[in-house]
Amino acid sequence: MKSIRTIDVADLEDIAIGGAILGTGGGGDPYIGKLMAQQAIRRHGKVRLVDVEGFDDNALIAPVCMMGAPTVMTEKLPQGEEIVIALRKLEKFLGRRVDAVLCGEAGGLNSTTPFVAAAAADLPLIDGDGMGRAFPELQMTTFGMHGVSATPMVLSDDKGNSVVLETISNRWTERLARSCTVDMGGSALLAFYPMSGAVAKKAVVRGTLSLCADLGRKLREARARHDDPVEAIRAALGAEIIFNGRVQDVLRRTIGGFARGEANIEGLDGDRGHKMRIAFQNEFLIAECDGQTLVTTPDMITLLEAETGVPVTADAMRYGIRVVALAYPCSEQWRTPQGLELVGPRYFGYDLDFRPFVANAMR
Amino acid sequence: MKSIRTIDVADLEDIAIGGAILGTGGGGDPYIGKLMAQQAIRRHGKVRLVDVEGFDDNALIAPVCMMGAPTVMTEKLPQGEEIVIALRKLEKFLGRRVDAVLCGEAGGLNSTTPFVAAAAADLPLIDGDGMGRAFPELQMTTFGMHGVSATPMVLSDDKGNSVVLETISNRWTERLARSCTVDMGGSALLAFYPMSGAVAKKAVVRGTLSLCADLGRKLREARARHDDPVEAIRAALGAEIIFNGRVQDVLRRTIGGFARGEANIEGLDGDRGHKMRIAFQNEFLIAECDGQTLVTTPDMITLLEAETGVPVTADAMRYGIRVVALAYPCSEQWRTPQGLELVGPRYFGYDLDFRPFVANAMR
Repeated sequence: MKSIRTIDVADLEDIAIGGAILGTGGGGDPYIGKLMAQQAIRRHGKVRLVDVEGFDDNALIAPVCMMGAPTVMTEKLPQGEEIVIALRKLEKFLGRRVDAVLCGEAGGLNSTTPFVAAAAADLPLIDGDGMGRAFPELQMTTFGMHGVSATPMVLSDDKGNSVVLETISNRWTERLARSCTVDMGGSALLAFYPMSGAVAKKAVVRGTLSLCADLGRKLREARARHDDPVEAIRAALGAEIIFNGRVQDVLRRTIGGFARGEANIEGLDGDRGHKMRIAFQNEFLIAECDGQTLVTTPDMITLLEAETGVPVTADAMRYGIRVVALAYPCSEQWRTPQGLELVGPRYFGYDLDFRPFVANAMR
Repeated sequence: MKSIRTIDVADLEDIAIGGAILGTGGGGDPYIGKLMAQQAIRRHGKVRLVDVEGFDDNALIAPVCMMGAPTVMTEKLPQGEEIVIALRKLEKFLGRRVDAVLCGEAGGLNSTTPFVAAAAADLPLIDGDGMGRAFPELQMTTFGMHGVSATPMVLSDDKGNSVVLETISNRWTERLARSCTVDMGGSALLAFYPMSGAVAKKAVVRGTLSLCADLGRKLREARARHDDPVEAIRAALGAEIIFNGRVQDVLRRTIGGFARGEANIEGLDGDRGHKMRIAFQNEFLIAECDGQTLVTTPDMITLLEAETGVPVTADAMRYGIRVVALAYPCSEQWRTPQGLELVGPRYFGYDLDFRPFVANAMR
């Protein structure tokens, strides 16, 4: 199989940062993700990033990811290689070896966890994911939109416990997996959504991991050249800067295994005198300026530190940080009626219709 | 294999009532259990009750039971045959057929659920259980005392969801299974503690289901003859009547998947002027008279309706019922240090040492 590229220790730095940009506030801490994946590559060797088109229609492909509240994961470091246990237990349950690993969601942590699994299990990793961003619940995948069941699914923890779920719907899987994750201490490692090569070719959001690497590299290079790092990311994403400001307060609660809350940002420079409110459930879901909705899920809201261009996760937000808010369109798959049913504003309890965000439109 | 006896529809009436007596307030509603098992026997045929000694040492034996708060089970009737799904999924996971079904606990419901599994799967049922009574948590078994892991364990619900657990300890199994049970709507059907014939011969509390049938029959016959039904049960158990009275109030909360609370009983007849307090967590755990502890878990406390001798579950207790409280010793296995660690008063948070109850001792 032709590799798109081979991923080594140094690349993980870029991928984790790029993942945190696409993670739109969630998807875990990039620092932890990077360390886990680098350690796995040092121990087991480089990872081949491959195109989904290279697989037989009857190949068996398994996404992997970490589940839990980011607030918990930052304090309770995963061992990392439990993800291989989850993958091996899924293979045992299915009675068949997996041919490739796939990324579940883009995020600081979850764009890197598949590298741990791929390196340790010596499997190729498909360049793509099931969201093109991060989302808080596990039924929120393009895999599910293409009829793939999240189960059989294995959850493993750092202590040696594991759970196999077989459910009647991906919503039920989310419910049961969330409780198990909470019991397991707030985070768990998952192998789930097993699918054929034929289905993967339709369901995967393509090129996500290459995009993560590209975003991370551009940020790194802009900083090295003393260019404007925020502009480098904005241009690479085709995004619009919707707000410039300073974080004023953050309300945050970890409930039911999620980090929920909202951040208020007071405007600076051209936005002085204005206020932005960003609501999140692990990920940023809604951005309002002076009470007017500018962007809603599933379109993408990324916060960058104004000086460094480093992405700010919902969990890392705190009083006083200077931030720039970017907005840009999500994968077209999410803008369909089926997509909006899974991840539109009404699913999250907001009484708002989705209006597609158009970058740099006249408003 | 020699059957001890064959169990038909009519026998289930006695077994469910006898189970509720040994259920010491928990173990589920005998009416529901009886209906479920009778329906299964009508559909699939009679069940052979067999002695554990008749099995090869390498036979595979699987206990089955229902898990959940009795308060929930009474309102949300199980379909019943989900228990066969749990059993079949356990077989699939182990890659091996089960040779016999075993009862997990004695109780109105859980002394009858194994008959559903045995009838529907056409398997013999071993005459015994893992408690000799009912207890609220699934690590509280003589199986666990003999080193048997509760996992691999399958939980199935009435909707079609199932979960396989593999854990590092039976306490972890309880924790994960309890959350899944709550998610599944408050009750689930389990196949767990898979064990060899050799281990079963050591670990099983023998004769429990015959004893249930015997207690139920004695109660039924005493009532038919207009004899004192309470005395018939007391004599059959070698128990002591520790209190006569009327239920005054019951504090009951369903929390974390358990029915917890306490009942206060005001004395009548010879106990007039005295008060009994009974604390429960699904099962009756502590009986105090006028502030003095008379009986503690794991010794057995059974409440009978004074007129009819019908056992009163913690869930069915309500203001005004006239009850007789019986106390009698538990299985000798529980009175060991290992047994008391699992089910003694301190495990349940009572600052009390276990003092073996001796029926009709001078106090």
